[in-house]
Amino acid sequence: MPHAEASTFEEGLTKEEVYSQVLEQARALFEDQRNWVCNLANTASLLYHALLSLPSPSNATNWCGFYVLDPKNPNQLILGPFHGHVACQIIPLGRGVCGTAAKTGVTQVVEDVDNFKGHIACDARSRSEIVVPVLKDGKVVAIIDIDCAELKGFTEEDRKPLEELAKLIAESCDF
Amino acid sequence: MPHAEASTFEEGLTKEEVYSQVLEQARALFEDQRNWVCNLANTASLLYHALLSLPSPSNATNWCGFYVLDPKNPNQLILGPFHGHVACQIIPLGRGVCGTAAKTGVTQVVEDVDNFKGHIACDARSRSEIVVPVLKDGKVVAIIDIDCAELKGFTEEDRKPLEELAKLIAESCDF
Repeated sequence: MPHAEASTFEEGLTKEEVYSQVLEQARALFEDQRNWVCNLANTASLLYHALLSLPSPSNATNWCGFYVLDPKNPNQLILGPFHGHVACQIIPLGRGVCGTAAKTGVTQVVEDVDNFKGHIACDARSRSEIVVPVLKDGKVVAIIDIDCAELKGFTEEDRKPLEELAKLIAESCDF
Repeated sequence: MPHAEASTFEEGLTKEEVYSQVLEQARALFEDQRNWVCNLANTASLLYHALLSLPSPSNATNWCGFYVLDPKNPNQLILGPFHGHVACQIIPLGRGVCGTAAKTGVTQVVEDVDNFKGHIACDARSRSEIVVPVLKDGKVVAIIDIDCAELKGFTEEDRKPLEELAKLIAESCDF
């Protein structure tokens, strides 16, 4: 099948079904390919189209992609593949939602970014955010970052499958 | 200004004005950053939003991004950052529109992909395509690839600024 169909999601699926398709397609795409840029580029597309196919608030997703540990400076994240408007290139570890997830290794589900101390506003439209660390041998190598233009865009229903995806990425990609 | 505004294009601009904004923003983004993944991720976003802001056929752009020379095999291209649906991971040099541009080092403007021998259909919606090589010291290191869901999506008006962008990328990024 043409690759584009992997990121085409039927109308009317539940969030669980949509994330299940994301994981299944990601597994298939990673099977013969360990290049992290290639795999994260396709995964950003999968996730973005998955979330846009769902009802509100998921269809208000306005940024979806990755930051990775900067090979030139392990104290900061650098922008990786994404879908959405132009984004901040560098995020210091510990700074904002992304930097906090990267420093602590713990998923951040933020219902209202304005209440998160030190939030970095790459896009003024973003109202809520989820950031999931990708851990390899206990160390953060990347983060999944998704922004939503509505408040409370993400819940446990997103956290669990995204942490499963992060685990798959860690196992399947060479960073 | 928040980074997202770099890829927000006013309504009613001409194609020349839109490409001029792309080049100006890309120059600003690359100023203190030479990481190719970071820079191509932002450039894919810039180009995608630029083309979607224009009238038909440009607003029918359905894929916009990059392939780079595969570090594991110099006879093939591997997927880089992009906007659009999930894409083919590997393209052999010489194969299809991307592979031809990469092998010859010459921009390919294809009015109808069905008439291009060996065209690789990652997405059945694509009807026309432009592929611009990024040359560093005379060697192709990457390609800019843009697909349009309408026939004759690209002309000389696209080729010239995209070749200028390719030159800027070659000068500004470490591959």
